Amino acid sequence: RSYVKYLSFLIHCRIMRPDDANIAGNVHGGTILKMIEEAGAIISTRHCNSQSGEPCVAALARVERTDFLSPMCIGDVANVSAEITYTSKHSVEVQVNVLSENILTGAKRMTNRATLWYVPLSLKNVDKVLEVPPIQYAWKELEEEGRKRYEEQKLERLVTKERNGDIIFPVINPEPYTVGCSQSSLIHLVGPSDCTLHGFVHGGVTMKLMDEVAGIVAARHCKTNVVTASVDAINFHEKIKKGCVITISGRMTFTSNKSMEIEVFVDADPFVDEPKERYRAVSAFFTYVSLSKEGKPLPVPQLVVESEDEKRRFEDGKGRYLQTKAKRQVQMQPLTQQ
Amino acid sequence: RSYVKYLSFLIHCRIMRPDDANIAGNVHGGTILKMIEEAGAIISTRHCNSQSGEPCVAALARVERTDFLSPMCIGDVANVSAEITYTSKHSVEVQVNVLSENILTGAKRMTNRATLWYVPLSLKNVDKVLEVPPIQYAWKELEEEGRKRYEEQKLERLVTKERNGDIIFPVINPEPYTVGCSQSSLIHLVGPSDCTLHGFVHGGVTMKLMDEVAGIVAARHCKTNVVTASVDAINFHEKIKKGCVITISGRMTFTSNKSMEIEVFVDADPFVDEPKERYRAVSAFFTYVSLSKEGKPLPVPQLVVESEDEKRRFEDGKGRYLQTKAKRQVQMQPLTQQ
Amino acid sequence: RSYVKYLSFLIHCRIMRPDDANIAGNVHGGTILKMIEEAGAIISTRHCNSQSGEPCVAALARVERTDFLSPMCIGDVANVSAEITYTSKHSVEVQVNVLSENILTGAKRMTNRATLWYVPLSLKNVDKVLEVPPIQYAWKELEEEGRKRYEEQKLERLVTKERNGDIIFPVINPEPYTVGCSQSSLIHLVGPSDCTLHGFVHGGVTMKLMDEVAGIVAARHCKTNVVTASVDAINFHEKIKKGCVITISGRMTFTSNKSMEIEVFVDADPFVDEPKERYRAVSAFFTYVSLSKEGKPLPVPQLVVESEDEKRRFEDGKGRYLQTKAKRQVQMQPLTQQ
Repeated sequence: RSYVKYLSFLIHCRIMRPDDANIAGNVHGGTILKMIEEAGAIISTRHCNSQSGEPCVAALARVERTDFLSPMCIGDVANVSAEITYTSKHSVEVQVNVLSENILTGAKRMTNRATLWYVPLSLKNVDKVLEVPPIQYAWKELEEEGRKRYEEQKLERLVTKERNGDIIFPVINPEPYTVGCSQSSLIHLVGPSDCTLHGFVHGGVTMKLMDEVAGIVAARHCKTNVVTASVDAINFHEKIKKGCVITISGRMTFTSNKSMEIEVFVDADPFVDEPKERYRAVSAFFTYVSLSKEGKPLPVPQLVVESEDEKRRFEDGKGRYLQTKAKRQVQMQPLTQQ
Repeated sequence: RSYVKYLSFLIHCRIMRPDDANIAGNVHGGTILKMIEEAGAIISTRHCNSQSGEPCVAALARVERTDFLSPMCIGDVANVSAEITYTSKHSVEVQVNVLSENILTGAKRMTNRATLWYVPLSLKNVDKVLEVPPIQYAWKELEEEGRKRYEEQKLERLVTKERNGDIIFPVINPEPYTVGCSQSSLIHLVGPSDCTLHGFVHGGVTMKLMDEVAGIVAARHCKTNVVTASVDAINFHEKIKKGCVITISGRMTFTSNKSMEIEVFVDADPFVDEPKERYRAVSAFFTYVSLSKEGKPLPVPQLVVESEDEKRRFEDGKGRYLQTKAKRQVQMQPLTQQ
Repeated sequence: RSYVKYLSFLIHCRIMRPDDANIAGNVHGGTILKMIEEAGAIISTRHCNSQSGEPCVAALARVERTDFLSPMCIGDVANVSAEITYTSKHSVEVQVNVLSENILTGAKRMTNRATLWYVPLSLKNVDKVLEVPPIQYAWKELEEEGRKRYEEQKLERLVTKERNGDIIFPVINPEPYTVGCSQSSLIHLVGPSDCTLHGFVHGGVTMKLMDEVAGIVAARHCKTNVVTASVDAINFHEKIKKGCVITISGRMTFTSNKSMEIEVFVDADPFVDEPKERYRAVSAFFTYVSLSKEGKPLPVPQLVVESEDEKRRFEDGKGRYLQTKAKRQVQMQPLTQQ
């Protein structure tokens, strides 16, 4: 019964402002990711509280890989709609679509299509995961396909947990186009408006900061106007609490002819009132492209890899790049040919 | 045909954050007014560009008197929907409804119902008012009633233009509960994200700042938690440009047993690149109530009026108060009985 | 004639919000510095354009050393007033006072008293410094004292230009309480709202970011609630343009029993459209204190200095500390006795 209710639920229309965009007028991928996550959080929290029971807040557990299909500019209206597409016992799958609308011409283009997974956490005891009210499916096949997606992401989440041990070391006087030359990091003090009712950082706030660092790494590398082309699946293993200082660091791992892959880590320091050590909260890969003044993709300077680790990461990145390219040939066309 | 399309169009769902609210957790009236205006601007700009012709942006001309019917708190989701209810040759009437939704309990309450008037200004020549595509009405009576509202507000706009000549002078060492004791002002440098595509301040940005000043005046007077109960009709006579400095000043004009009326002026200094003098851009009356910790309306200390002007303004305020009270007895019940 | 007009000009009343403060509810020193600079920029830009001539924007050249005399908290109203106290041929001295007002009790306390120097830059040619209309002084002595302050700061600006060559190198696996252990850096992409009409970063935006980094360094060192006690004189030698990436780095230089001195550097990378190299834009010393839950100053762990440079900087810091302490005994009492 719930299914019909949530179908194509429009959550948001917002005019894009100068502060949402870079100097060339392209809206930051991070701004879009933040809107997507806010829509997902609203619809899943609403659903998880739809049956009487312990009150809860839906916390972001994972965002599936997502492509930025067409650019959004200052003055455009972002139309964000969300739909619950699957529920397991303890998690909710939300599909969010973002259209960019030129309100002067009326033209609408799909900007982004994202899939997010949320888990309901009790408001009284934040470590307690509650049960999710089941949705009804229009066709039996929809449930079956959802279950498959659920199992796949569950497996992947386990795998990436391993990857999270790495640290970005600073480099003194790096050579041009090396990894050390463009790597960047940012610290942010988590304020009240970054947080949910639990006092934990919204997933969207974290993704916006990650995109900001990735964008700076990309711009430092190619010194042109850069935009987010896609974001790898992101897993949120550990929560981040209000009052923490978070360090977001990014380094380039791979370049193709027309794209750059940047790995981003988020580390949290719970320094004020807790004995806990610094911990890795999130990590992800962002793909950026470089654009000319006319908005056409430009060639990207090759990344110079030096150490064995850098070479290995470059090969891994190439693997991800080729895999995505192969997948894409059977699917829709993205923002750029990369 | 257009009518059906716009009916009950949901524009916005947003989680209310700590910065949207006062220390007691009540969302500022100004935050709500800003969301309302953004919804109105999107839907009317979209409509005015729906037929091919000169591209335009809808500029806010007037907001009708509006009551805040129930409080909204941090963590609530604001649901903002908008509908075009009347079009004249050169203006659009938009009705915006705001519901506050407790996503934990699912309870929804009407917070605000506002009527806004927009005028389409050409993007190429900002002084040129364009024609508005007509909407179709489900019943003939709807058009007739809309025309009546249009004529009424047109008349009122002419009248208020006169009122705008007053200035708030600072008072040294004022006595408690006098007008001088609580009057306040705020200066704001108009930045790019405050502005439309034309480079003029969004009406909603101005209203938010006006509510902020009114709230400080009210809190200084009664030294308790205060919330916006209603806003008088506001006319936007003159546009305010990017780069201006605006001064927003407020003074108390009237107190009833349980409410305070605050007059707010907005003056713009186009000081940098223009020979123009400081001018009065907007003025309005805000009504505030004082709330106990349990959210019940508290008695308000009487305003001490000293000069002849203050006495006259007090009497005018009393007139508005009694008129509103009389109207309200035939309509729905507001936030407080005042 | 201008003098009377600007005397005790109240610029600003603003309610302090959760995002303006740390988790203990103390408003960040950087938030206050940003409000001070905005007030100074408005009053000096207005003054410099008060005679017909080339339109200009006043750019911040220097802020004199300033103490934070009493804390400001969430819910307080900050009252910011500004006054032009001296004009030379090409610069304006502005005195800004900040009072924190508890609107529930009506109590007001002086939080900050700052002196800022501005220089009018032509809007058409940003490298051209224009002439400042002279103010009239109530007494001849006021002009004389102003001239003395003007000469002193001019001399000091020349001296500090030398100091600016240092770089903060990263440290791998630092020991507790060493300089390397708490040093921090932050990158920020300069957005439109950070900038003046010229497209250069507001001095106040830079100071806010500097205070943020200093606060993180201090909190990492003593792992308690920390607040800004004072800021050394800051000189703004080089402008920072919209679209730049700025790196703000801080390291601890000195600790007394109850205070910490943190040196902060701002470096700008004009990487997108210019061949220019990274340059040092600003540097300054911030003094922080650690507060108990009751708001009393706590003892601070001693800084462990290792290298010769660190020892030298510690001695320099001690010199500044003793000098300030001596001066303070003939003046008014600050926030803490340190």
